[in-house]
Amino acid sequence: MQIAILVYPGFTSLDIIGPYEILGRLPGTEVVLVGGAKGLMTNDLGALSIDVPATFEDVPAPDVVLVGGGPGQVHQMADGRLHEWLRAADATSAWTTSVCTGSLILAGAGLLKGRRATSHWLALEQLPQYGVTPAHERVVIDGHYATAAGVSSGIDMALKLAGELTDDDVARTIQLIVEYAPEPPYAAGSLDTASPTVVNLAKARLSGRFADS
Amino acid sequence: MQIAILVYPGFTSLDIIGPYEILGRLPGTEVVLVGGAKGLMTNDLGALSIDVPATFEDVPAPDVVLVGGGPGQVHQMADGRLHEWLRAADATSAWTTSVCTGSLILAGAGLLKGRRATSHWLALEQLPQYGVTPAHERVVIDGHYATAAGVSSGIDMALKLAGELTDDDVARTIQLIVEYAPEPPYAAGSLDTASPTVVNLAKARLSGRFADS
Repeated sequence: MQIAILVYPGFTSLDIIGPYEILGRLPGTEVVLVGGAKGLMTNDLGALSIDVPATFEDVPAPDVVLVGGGPGQVHQMADGRLHEWLRAADATSAWTTSVCTGSLILAGAGLLKGRRATSHWLALEQLPQYGVTPAHERVVIDGHYATAAGVSSGIDMALKLAGELTDDDVARTIQLIVEYAPEPPYAAGSLDTASPTVVNLAKARLSGRFADS
Repeated sequence: MQIAILVYPGFTSLDIIGPYEILGRLPGTEVVLVGGAKGLMTNDLGALSIDVPATFEDVPAPDVVLVGGGPGQVHQMADGRLHEWLRAADATSAWTTSVCTGSLILAGAGLLKGRRATSHWLALEQLPQYGVTPAHERVVIDGHYATAAGVSSGIDMALKLAGELTDDDVARTIQLIVEYAPEPPYAAGSLDTASPTVVNLAKARLSGRFADS
């Protein structure tokens, strides 16, 4: 089984590394980082540069496609070559998946039309313009599409996917290996639980970063 | 504020990327990936190569030191140059921290002697040989040491640290930005909740990977 993880300049690192840490442990699985060009690509926060060893042409038919988000996502919304690769890969993939604003990239390629999907809480309202029904849920599965909410939610999505791709005990074993029994020290991780003060602080920090291209 | 994150061949990616995604969003903070040599270093699972832009000599006095784990950790237990850097950095750091078997590296450098600390559940029993009291807890703070349990626990540790380094609302804002409201689809993330079958599967998968050097 081949899992292709998209990397582009300005990616959010946990969006892709969270799922990679889970899916990369599935038996008999090859993970390949793929981008528009080979070489180093730097993340949104600037301190992490990842080597991208494969271009779209090198990975024409992965079993699983994973598209993460990040402020660099806005530059991927009109990328014809990326969209062509996504549509072709999606035609044969077992699962096409996204984390955070990665769902906007999938939607921009026309892949989620008529589907329910999720995204970062601040980007959800951008989904309808692509004919996608936004769902304020952490993980949404509709057909062979699995979309996750913001950044850290990719871990939950990947564990669910691990169970679908193999079986529950394989997924549980990976969960124990990465000791995923979260104990957040605060309860502000969702719009439903964060205070208005924190929501406003977050919106100010993210202002313009998820804007439409 | 400068945060130094150690990278070495065979690192576990989520160990360092989880905390980076949190701590890298602290205001006025520079994160630097540091290693024994500059250049690309590949993770334990093999698909991720990270560019390490700085050596120990380039980062002599970081405010926060973060050491992740991974099977590559066993090769760091007798590295005199790494241990010297850790001891020198720890002498002036505000916080010296670890995720997963990173605590074994800190302990091997003599930094946790007489302290309580945690580690990956399968590595906890290795701590006493370094004079460290093992604690089966997700995040342990003792003095200016913060240690986290396996892999994904670094996210919880980093959020706690974010609150200590700034204030609770800054930490909560980062939690909301990365939408950290976990919903694990299984309840097998801890020795306390995983079934004996899953524990045995995990032990078999990890056999020899956290072994003493």
